[in-house]
Amino acid sequence: MEHIHSGEKTKVIILAAGKGTRFRSEKPKVLHEILGKPMIFYVSLSARWINPEQIIYVVGHKKEEVKKAINCDRCVYVEQDQQLGTGHAVAAAKDYFKDYDGYVLIMNGDMPLIKGETLKNAISFMDALVRYEGANLGDMAGYRNENIAGVVLTAYMQDPTGYGRVIKDSQHRVLRIVEEKDASPQERSIKEVNTGIYIFYAPYLAEVIDQLENDNAQNEYYITDVIRLLRKKGKEVHSLIIPDPTEAIGINNRWDLARAENIMKMQYLSFWALNGATIHSPETVWIEFDVDLSKDVEIFPNVMLRGSTQIGEGTVIESNCIIKNSRIGKNVKILANTVIEDSVIQDNAVVGPFSRIRNNTVVGSEAVIGNFVEVKNSKIGDRTNVRHLSYIGDAEVGNDVNIGAGTITCNYDGFKKHKTVIKDKAFIGSDTMLVAPVTVGEEAITGSGSVITKDVPDKALAVERSAQKIIPNYAEIRKKKKGADE
Amino acid sequence: MEHIHSGEKTKVIILAAGKGTRFRSEKPKVLHEILGKPMIFYVSLSARWINPEQIIYVVGHKKEEVKKAINCDRCVYVEQDQQLGTGHAVAAAKDYFKDYDGYVLIMNGDMPLIKGETLKNAISFMDALVRYEGANLGDMAGYRNENIAGVVLTAYMQDPTGYGRVIKDSQHRVLRIVEEKDASPQERSIKEVNTGIYIFYAPYLAEVIDQLENDNAQNEYYITDVIRLLRKKGKEVHSLIIPDPTEAIGINNRWDLARAENIMKMQYLSFWALNGATIHSPETVWIEFDVDLSKDVEIFPNVMLRGSTQIGEGTVIESNCIIKNSRIGKNVKILANTVIEDSVIQDNAVVGPFSRIRNNTVVGSEAVIGNFVEVKNSKIGDRTNVRHLSYIGDAEVGNDVNIGAGTITCNYDGFKKHKTVIKDKAFIGSDTMLVAPVTVGEEAITGSGSVITKDVPDKALAVERSAQKIIPNYAEIRKKKKGADE
Amino acid sequence: MEHIHSGEKTKVIILAAGKGTRFRSEKPKVLHEILGKPMIFYVSLSARWINPEQIIYVVGHKKEEVKKAINCDRCVYVEQDQQLGTGHAVAAAKDYFKDYDGYVLIMNGDMPLIKGETLKNAISFMDALVRYEGANLGDMAGYRNENIAGVVLTAYMQDPTGYGRVIKDSQHRVLRIVEEKDASPQERSIKEVNTGIYIFYAPYLAEVIDQLENDNAQNEYYITDVIRLLRKKGKEVHSLIIPDPTEAIGINNRWDLARAENIMKMQYLSFWALNGATIHSPETVWIEFDVDLSKDVEIFPNVMLRGSTQIGEGTVIESNCIIKNSRIGKNVKILANTVIEDSVIQDNAVVGPFSRIRNNTVVGSEAVIGNFVEVKNSKIGDRTNVRHLSYIGDAEVGNDVNIGAGTITCNYDGFKKHKTVIKDKAFIGSDTMLVAPVTVGEEAITGSGSVITKDVPDKALAVERSAQKIIPNYAEIRKKKKGADE
Repeated sequence: MEHIHSGEKTKVIILAAGKGTRFRSEKPKVLHEILGKPMIFYVSLSARWINPEQIIYVVGHKKEEVKKAINCDRCVYVEQDQQLGTGHAVAAAKDYFKDYDGYVLIMNGDMPLIKGETLKNAISFMDALVRYEGANLGDMAGYRNENIAGVVLTAYMQDPTGYGRVIKDSQHRVLRIVEEKDASPQERSIKEVNTGIYIFYAPYLAEVIDQLENDNAQNEYYITDVIRLLRKKGKEVHSLIIPDPTEAIGINNRWDLARAENIMKMQYLSFWALNGATIHSPETVWIEFDVDLSKDVEIFPNVMLRGSTQIGEGTVIESNCIIKNSRIGKNVKILANTVIEDSVIQDNAVVGPFSRIRNNTVVGSEAVIGNFVEVKNSKIGDRTNVRHLSYIGDAEVGNDVNIGAGTITCNYDGFKKHKTVIKDKAFIGSDTMLVAPVTVGEEAITGSGSVITKDVPDKALAVERSAQKIIPNYAEIRKKKKGADE
Repeated sequence: MEHIHSGEKTKVIILAAGKGTRFRSEKPKVLHEILGKPMIFYVSLSARWINPEQIIYVVGHKKEEVKKAINCDRCVYVEQDQQLGTGHAVAAAKDYFKDYDGYVLIMNGDMPLIKGETLKNAISFMDALVRYEGANLGDMAGYRNENIAGVVLTAYMQDPTGYGRVIKDSQHRVLRIVEEKDASPQERSIKEVNTGIYIFYAPYLAEVIDQLENDNAQNEYYITDVIRLLRKKGKEVHSLIIPDPTEAIGINNRWDLARAENIMKMQYLSFWALNGATIHSPETVWIEFDVDLSKDVEIFPNVMLRGSTQIGEGTVIESNCIIKNSRIGKNVKILANTVIEDSVIQDNAVVGPFSRIRNNTVVGSEAVIGNFVEVKNSKIGDRTNVRHLSYIGDAEVGNDVNIGAGTITCNYDGFKKHKTVIKDKAFIGSDTMLVAPVTVGEEAITGSGSVITKDVPDKALAVERSAQKIIPNYAEIRKKKKGADE
Repeated sequence: MEHIHSGEKTKVIILAAGKGTRFRSEKPKVLHEILGKPMIFYVSLSARWINPEQIIYVVGHKKEEVKKAINCDRCVYVEQDQQLGTGHAVAAAKDYFKDYDGYVLIMNGDMPLIKGETLKNAISFMDALVRYEGANLGDMAGYRNENIAGVVLTAYMQDPTGYGRVIKDSQHRVLRIVEEKDASPQERSIKEVNTGIYIFYAPYLAEVIDQLENDNAQNEYYITDVIRLLRKKGKEVHSLIIPDPTEAIGINNRWDLARAENIMKMQYLSFWALNGATIHSPETVWIEFDVDLSKDVEIFPNVMLRGSTQIGEGTVIESNCIIKNSRIGKNVKILANTVIEDSVIQDNAVVGPFSRIRNNTVVGSEAVIGNFVEVKNSKIGDRTNVRHLSYIGDAEVGNDVNIGAGTITCNYDGFKKHKTVIKDKAFIGSDTMLVAPVTVGEEAITGSGSVITKDVPDKALAVERSAQKIIPNYAEIRKKKKGADE
């Protein structure tokens, strides 16, 4: 094992077999979501970031669901059908590292805040120990210290409750790690805790992994017990304190989950703020991993940007908007309380307040979609207005069209959906019912309150209406009638 | 007084007479609300939790309003018409404890965060003092220490500003409590503060309660002065520090109110998270006392669950929803920006976004209520869809009905409300006006834009519509006409 | 220079020339907004609060935009075309202070949290030094200490990172200020930092301002270097620690901006809470500078009150409402998810949920505006109801009118907007289209689904409708037809 660079000579084992009893859930622990993705996603991401030779997932509880969520073809899945402890889990993966001349990095699937860079630094640290520890200045690079068996990533926690404590000798070598339940009061006062991330030289790990015992308070096989076994063989395990202890937070229940989600959210938001987006009341804003913001985007309180969503330069998103899997152009105004899903809003459009846009809709540039308007699976042309109380579904609307308040595309006949076509510069009167399939021609006009069942030629007026009748003094008649009813 | 268990030999006096000048409100202080209930509710709840022999409320300012809010038939109300201090308030209740061989627990009505368990522990502590204090190991249980007069509940506050400081002797007996305004600089540096909760042996309290004087900075009769009087009689008052000082927060203005509400909210939310609900951005979520969540409920940011509301297993509630006094079934999806009040949503239904359901509505299982739809005092059958821009009021809608966009039940004739009946499998065309009272039969159909004033037989089509007329080239005519208008 | 009172003998220089590179914005730094106003607004406000003789703005980057935002006729603008440091900026204003027998107060335009009172205290401190420093008890008032050249406002920061550190002698005179980049490790450990606010005796400042050099890490002319130059002349500069270090926060990027906005928001909210408004979940509420709340206003989570907005006594504003530039009367209920802009809501009205009121609308007292209703540029009379799914634009609606669900004022003919008049006690049936210009008379009635194109006389019924036709057994016919279609 010579020049080791980050990941190149490393396999990662991710423990993802647990049920997570304290989640009180039908769903396996690592599939509980943070900012719209299962927590195993973030752990996997950090693992992939170091570009390891292989990622091995140890799965168990509801393993098919977990594998599906991980969704990694090049990864290896090892099954641990009984959950008898972390050591037992690693042992299940032994076939994949027993003949491997490299490192094994072991981590839990419930640590979504861990960063790839932290893992990379840990491997570099291990690498430096193996090559240089105990070496004189005159030694050549590539010197191999055969005593070094591994590194435990640790963290200083102001409140270490619940974490395993790290017991070290005077030379900073780890003697052992005690679980809280097995710790003496003195040991409990230690604030350096085990993060649950370890790097071992694979052949050494393979030698001892089957020798673990479960004679502890939990009757579990602890991976931490490997340290004792390696020390018996004269090997050393060192510790590396990670600078930011929040990365080490393990998610054991849904309150931990909420707190981790908050931390990750603030990390994303400060990233975007420092990159040129104004974020008002960031504590109330929600931005997911696959979101991309351009310069001079302004985001008001309580906005959610979900899934794969891009927001163009100069666009303002007012309060309470939810945008998912959508592309919003430049200088767009998304007014308050708007919900957009799976759609595209082009430059300079104005949408909202109280609009709902969904299902592959495209809103053209400078178009206006107003309040209490739903647009579904439609193309709305440039500079077209749909300002009030309308439902536009399965429609192709041209440029410079004006659609009056209360217009509805009657796209569903109880059997299937039909298409409405409205051509450029048409003027649709208020409360027009467009019974699809139907086409309204260029510059055509429909009268208010008309039910349009047949195509309207270009420039024509289509109207469906009776004559207005007046019954004088009906107020008095009505009062008497109603009085008689009582 | 022999074996005393929590509450059995205790009367509680709750001081609720104050105006709360710093609230600057027409409403009495203890009626200001936290999570939808007056703060006196929470204090009463903790008092009742210990199951005392009697609860005595001292009321004064707007006493009828306060008594109505407390709404306790078995409780006793004592009137304190002038608010001359806490001691004066307790004296007003003297008749109820002067002949009582038990404890009197005194507390303020403005401490909504106090827990019943804390009160119970305090009584147990008093009880232990009375029985065992000064006893040798050989003493029998039931030994009665006649020196013990009471216990003051205290708290350590990092910032004790505004609270009375507790002065103790070397044997941890309370010498006196000094109000901030009467305290020396040295006394002000003490961080052990009076919570305003006291337990006294009733006959001892009765002996001294009328001897209080008001020669202090506020010219008030302080209940704390009882300690000095009891000490003069050779009696001892001990202190018990409550572990969580937030319980001792007294609410003196509306900023305190907001902070206490936040604390209580987070307590409820962490409770539900640990019991199996996923709560996103808990700081933005609001859950009231009478809400019940099942396992695997997921709650997105800025949701309010109010009044008596139950949410079934697996149900998801998206952002910005407000649900009050309603029962939501299993695996329901409540999409964003939905308001539900006094209604029932059955299993697997989908409601929202932008729905409003109210006034004893029942939405059947697998039904879909969509955007910009209001349903009021109606029954919506199973698998029935009302997807867009509709108002359904005072209606009975069967199963498998499809209600088109823009449908309105015209339930009000200016005099009274009438009922609409839509039977199973009916298909209501878009923009149908259903002029109630009216019945649409099974599998019946209404044409788009029809005003339905007469009943529609089963399987029939009802249509109210004129013929569509076309005026060719009207665009040009119209332009000229409008031009002439200008 | 004799009796100096706050501001009377002071000119203020505000540095507003910077680009704010770390904002990554097209907009100049000081124009980035906090609670709806550019940050320079708040700095200017504090400067004006001390009533100085003159305010001099040093502008540079996009100076026309900045001057327009400052919008102060009586102020002086000095141009600094190259941004070569704070000293260079002050030098650009030299003409305005070189012959001035008074103080110059220098501050940055990026300190929106600074309070006027803090500036006033600083001037009083300077004044006291000039008059009394070194004076014996027997000295007369008005004694002039010619050694005193200035005062630096400083702050203790727990984390001083990024700020200049203040180096003082044993007599608390400032020796020099070192920028972080130029500081030694020992100097970096100092927690007393420069706020960037200075007061200098103008003639002394004028003497040295041109002697600054830029031989430092940034190659900038630092105003802080003035201290060294003044000391060389035997003059003294003192420091004054401001009690609340948050006032000293400088806004260098958009994350700072978000945090400053949060701080200011909480200041406003606690102010209103202490003055008699109930604010639920204040962290989620947004109240701008020109908002005024009366007693017993209740504000639920996630409300935004923007621009110049007044809320009357006893009014309740439910969650998620946004109200801008509007006047809301007494005992009004604004139900959830309502957006109101540039309008007036009179006493006892009920608006929402899901209402949108805009563009100079007046809603009369006891009127009800309900869900999915937009009212634009209209007058709604007292006790008038518009409860569901309506668009009322450019209308004058009388008192006691009932407007049915789905009513639309067809105010736009594609060329211009027309007016609708509905007189007192009219009853507008559901889904009435009011084709403007049109008038509905007093107590007049319109039939459901009618398109009203001609005026309706008082008390008359207007109806536009065909006869309802029934086609029996159409369900079967339709199924066959559709089946054939497939």
